[in-house]
Amino acid sequence: MKKRVVIVGGGFAGLNAARVLGNKVDIEVTLIDRKNYHLFQPLLYQVAMAALGEGDIAAPLRNMLANYQNITVFKGIVEQIDMKRKTVTTDFGDIEYDYLILACGVQHHYFGHNEWEEFAPGLKTLAQAKEIRRRVMEAYECAERTKDPVERKKLLTFVIVGGGPTGVELAGSIGEMSRYTLSKFYRNIDPKLTRIFIVEAAPRILGSFDPELASKATRSLEKLGVQVWASSMVTDVDADGVQIGNERIEAATVLWAAGVTAITIGKKMGLDTDRIGRIVVDKDLSIAPHPEIFVGGDLAYFVPENGIPLPGLAPVALQQGRAIGRNILLDSKQKPRKAFRYRDKGQMATIGKNKAIVEFGKIKFDGIFAWFTWLLVHIYFLTSFRHRVFVLLQWGWSYFTFSYGARLIVNREWRFYPNAKEPAKSTTTTDKS
Amino acid sequence: MKKRVVIVGGGFAGLNAARVLGNKVDIEVTLIDRKNYHLFQPLLYQVAMAALGEGDIAAPLRNMLANYQNITVFKGIVEQIDMKRKTVTTDFGDIEYDYLILACGVQHHYFGHNEWEEFAPGLKTLAQAKEIRRRVMEAYECAERTKDPVERKKLLTFVIVGGGPTGVELAGSIGEMSRYTLSKFYRNIDPKLTRIFIVEAAPRILGSFDPELASKATRSLEKLGVQVWASSMVTDVDADGVQIGNERIEAATVLWAAGVTAITIGKKMGLDTDRIGRIVVDKDLSIAPHPEIFVGGDLAYFVPENGIPLPGLAPVALQQGRAIGRNILLDSKQKPRKAFRYRDKGQMATIGKNKAIVEFGKIKFDGIFAWFTWLLVHIYFLTSFRHRVFVLLQWGWSYFTFSYGARLIVNREWRFYPNAKEPAKSTTTTDKS
Repeated sequence: MKKRVVIVGGGFAGLNAARVLGNKVDIEVTLIDRKNYHLFQPLLYQVAMAALGEGDIAAPLRNMLANYQNITVFKGIVEQIDMKRKTVTTDFGDIEYDYLILACGVQHHYFGHNEWEEFAPGLKTLAQAKEIRRRVMEAYECAERTKDPVERKKLLTFVIVGGGPTGVELAGSIGEMSRYTLSKFYRNIDPKLTRIFIVEAAPRILGSFDPELASKATRSLEKLGVQVWASSMVTDVDADGVQIGNERIEAATVLWAAGVTAITIGKKMGLDTDRIGRIVVDKDLSIAPHPEIFVGGDLAYFVPENGIPLPGLAPVALQQGRAIGRNILLDSKQKPRKAFRYRDKGQMATIGKNKAIVEFGKIKFDGIFAWFTWLLVHIYFLTSFRHRVFVLLQWGWSYFTFSYGARLIVNREWRFYPNAKEPAKSTTTTDKS
Repeated sequence: MKKRVVIVGGGFAGLNAARVLGNKVDIEVTLIDRKNYHLFQPLLYQVAMAALGEGDIAAPLRNMLANYQNITVFKGIVEQIDMKRKTVTTDFGDIEYDYLILACGVQHHYFGHNEWEEFAPGLKTLAQAKEIRRRVMEAYECAERTKDPVERKKLLTFVIVGGGPTGVELAGSIGEMSRYTLSKFYRNIDPKLTRIFIVEAAPRILGSFDPELASKATRSLEKLGVQVWASSMVTDVDADGVQIGNERIEAATVLWAAGVTAITIGKKMGLDTDRIGRIVVDKDLSIAPHPEIFVGGDLAYFVPENGIPLPGLAPVALQQGRAIGRNILLDSKQKPRKAFRYRDKGQMATIGKNKAIVEFGKIKFDGIFAWFTWLLVHIYFLTSFRHRVFVLLQWGWSYFTFSYGARLIVNREWRFYPNAKEPAKSTTTTDKS
């Protein structure tokens, strides 16, 4: 009798679990995601910065899994999970499972100030990336139009909250764009005057990296006009800027690259979770009372021998997804499950053209070689998308021409979305110019 | 003393007028558009059908005009025009002009039923194209999920209102996609069962084409599963389908490719307009009482010697834009203006892979040769976009793999758009599954 596996979430963990289970006898997989696409998160900031198009780093899940006849993909929302009846309740009906894989990731949290989200979008989805792109480009358009120098200064000020890789990459891109790309396009403003800030609560940015590399990254950022404010806790965010204790920066555009929180699913199910809601998993990535339930990716709180919990990185999610798939196969062969062991793939961040830092165990390096390493690694991992050749071409183009992709502002001209799946939302707009 | 030229609209007419005036001595150009990009309209349907990305057929106006030092581009909205004071009032202040070029085009009209727009989006802007893409793909997702066969039939039914080139190209693409591309991606539905209708009020589709070519196009459409309803006037459109007199089609997705109307600017200014609001222009493309005001593109109502008003086609707009620019230069040289003469570039429409019709004066042909002609002509005209190489590659890819670009559904996850330029709008959503 076929084992029914339900996977919640089509990110790195969910997708790779599905691939391991694909076309395996006696296994039937149902993958549910609220989006219809898998997203190559590490390059999302490039979509936000108009260096890449959405099609370059995302592909519909059903295309990616089309050749696995035993996998069914649904675009839908999981509303409830009944662990006793082993049933997942979705917005399109109930689905029973023998194995459940939770891989629905984390989202940005605003230190308990969700009202800040309105003024400081995060960067987790394509929609958010397009929104960030729209805001950044709109700011330059408004600056070109306004005659008020103070207003213009505010419009040409960008604050990135959070000094992790994403924050650094966003700040670096804006710095590069403003210093090199945009200059010749405007008549009334000098984009080189753009002020860019990284506001980081910790004493330094890139805390997960070697201090020396981090300070090199900081120098590279400074050369692009980015000012790093370390040991700076944001105390308020509004439509006109950010408050940092007694200090204040007036900025039309604030981007959020700070804390994340696991969606409340773990608590809802009454499972052990850590401080930010990640579900505590055993060595085999299942959860204590329910060996048939696995958790992978950012949503999983996994502590290896060394006692340091694994970070929310793509390679971790990818490896966990595969490990979960393999453990389910081991079960069906009545063999003992294997404990998950993370093979460290190192970490890297790119600041700008020819500028990146790479850390792999003891090996640490930066500069142009690091940048090419970053390039190759990411191109390699894009292989799941049919567009990787386009990505290479576009990067090549940008590299030599220093021009970016189409910086289009596609405003929502739509009042109604009759067959949209989201709950009704109201949009309010305020004029900034 | 420099002549100040204000151009309203960055379409084919406005852009090409600007190019003619670019870097000319004693001329100062201000181009205003509510979008920040120029759009290659003839291929917009390919964005709607996910065959191309938005960056492939659009580019920011300020990039395209960057090398003309005497041209300033503003993203803004023209609110009023004072022909006596020769002043344009925008949402960012007043701008005086010596010459005014109106080229802000036309929009869809719903035979006086604007409430239909909610259920049947038109195809004039990138935002609309993305919305159409979203609706089409969403319909397949919902069909895959629903267990109700009648609901599924409705979800797999697409009605295109209007049998002009755009309607034919949309219908053809959906037919091709459903018959060849999507099949292998779904488990619960057979996309080949998709029903597609073109509802045209006139006795036949492609009325501007030779009847024989039009009937060949109809045959090609039928082979892709498209049913053409001619002499069929839509009497009502709602969330569940369309009413055609006593007949009714239940459809989750209705697309509007029917009538257009010039925006009310002409009437507002008290100028001569035709039935659909296009501004009547003289032989030199200026308007009778105001030789300093020119009108070009879809907004202009121009009647050549043969007495047949020029249609709203890209080549017409392009040539008129250039002619306007040249006439302004002639003025500055105290030379007489030239009357506009349209050099017929013929017309063509594509139905699907290897299927197109081309009409050029007496020459008429269809089939694969017509399709390649269509391809080459459009690639040629894409030369203003840095992406034309990508377009070629993507088309090549689609041609041989029969796969389309990323069919991503990017839902709006945003409640607020603090620095959006649009007036506040509320979005309502209704669940279709």
